[in-house]
Amino acid sequence: MNFCSNCGVAVQLRIPPGDNLPRYVCDACKTIHYQNPKIVAGCLPQWENKVLLCRRAIEPRYGLWTLPAGFMEKGETTVQTAIRETLEEAGAKVEISGLYTLFNLPYIDQVYLLYRSQLLDLDFTPGGESLEVQLFSEDEIPWDQLAFRVMHETLKLYFEDRGAGTFGTYVGDIVRTQDKASYIVSLMDKER
Amino acid sequence: MNFCSNCGVAVQLRIPPGDNLPRYVCDACKTIHYQNPKIVAGCLPQWENKVLLCRRAIEPRYGLWTLPAGFMEKGETTVQTAIRETLEEAGAKVEISGLYTLFNLPYIDQVYLLYRSQLLDLDFTPGGESLEVQLFSEDEIPWDQLAFRVMHETLKLYFEDRGAGTFGTYVGDIVRTQDKASYIVSLMDKER
Repeated sequence: MNFCSNCGVAVQLRIPPGDNLPRYVCDACKTIHYQNPKIVAGCLPQWENKVLLCRRAIEPRYGLWTLPAGFMEKGETTVQTAIRETLEEAGAKVEISGLYTLFNLPYIDQVYLLYRSQLLDLDFTPGGESLEVQLFSEDEIPWDQLAFRVMHETLKLYFEDRGAGTFGTYVGDIVRTQDKASYIVSLMDKER
Repeated sequence: MNFCSNCGVAVQLRIPPGDNLPRYVCDACKTIHYQNPKIVAGCLPQWENKVLLCRRAIEPRYGLWTLPAGFMEKGETTVQTAIRETLEEAGAKVEISGLYTLFNLPYIDQVYLLYRSQLLDLDFTPGGESLEVQLFSEDEIPWDQLAFRVMHETLKLYFEDRGAGTFGTYVGDIVRTQDKASYIVSLMDKER
């Protein structure tokens, strides 16, 4: 951020009175510009013993597989975002079963919310951001062709839970190692 | 938003190619300025049969009671936000038990995440944004002096669950009626 989005004057980076973090502030119109993490919401769509994945037609991770998800828009609820993204990316209509995973990704300032959901029919088709959309059983999941670690972790939990016959709601963190070469995944205690 | 925060030129509001919502776009440097909802995270701190509330020393709702919570900062996880806000507003140290409620507040573009937590000691004290901090048993809760509906709903669920002897994780929406005079609260099915 270089300029005030309200009045166009150059902003300064400093700690405002009563605050304890540096913010971009405008000395002309006195606006303080707060910047905060964003929410990505999506679905884990189920059909019998299979789950629906989309192969990405966009960067990053072009050509790799992911669960349908995207940035939450103003005016939406997180469930509405999850349903909309599933329709946009996979042409798929779902009924939400419940919140499944909340993953914090602090290195990119994102919080992922993935909902378990039931596909309402098999009438799905790739949207503009997908090359193809396909149902996978557990032994068909392309584990080495998944686009994002958060989807890998969510699918891993899902098949573990399905094996155990009960689904929880999980909160976890995915952080990057200092050399940025790999990730550390931690999950809050499943037992509460 | 009137000016591009990157280059300072006046922005235009229009739907970018490949998008379906109007965004503020800069024709000079080609930046698209996305605006998204914000996360507020906080705690429901427990001590024996009591919960900790803060009386607000700031607007909005000066003088009313709330659970400690605040805006998530960049670089944080939602759990870190909840712990930090509890320390800042109540001077209280907590251990997180688990995610308790996720409430969407689409009329103000906020998502609340409230975590059940255990107070580690009784050494709490009001921070700069609080007039006082106090433990309340269920029959002492100042229901008609609570600052926010989302805190009312979370506390209501908490005492119901405590009575039943088991705590879930709840996802709900709080929307405003068209005349903006009241709220409609809906909760996703508790049974999954």
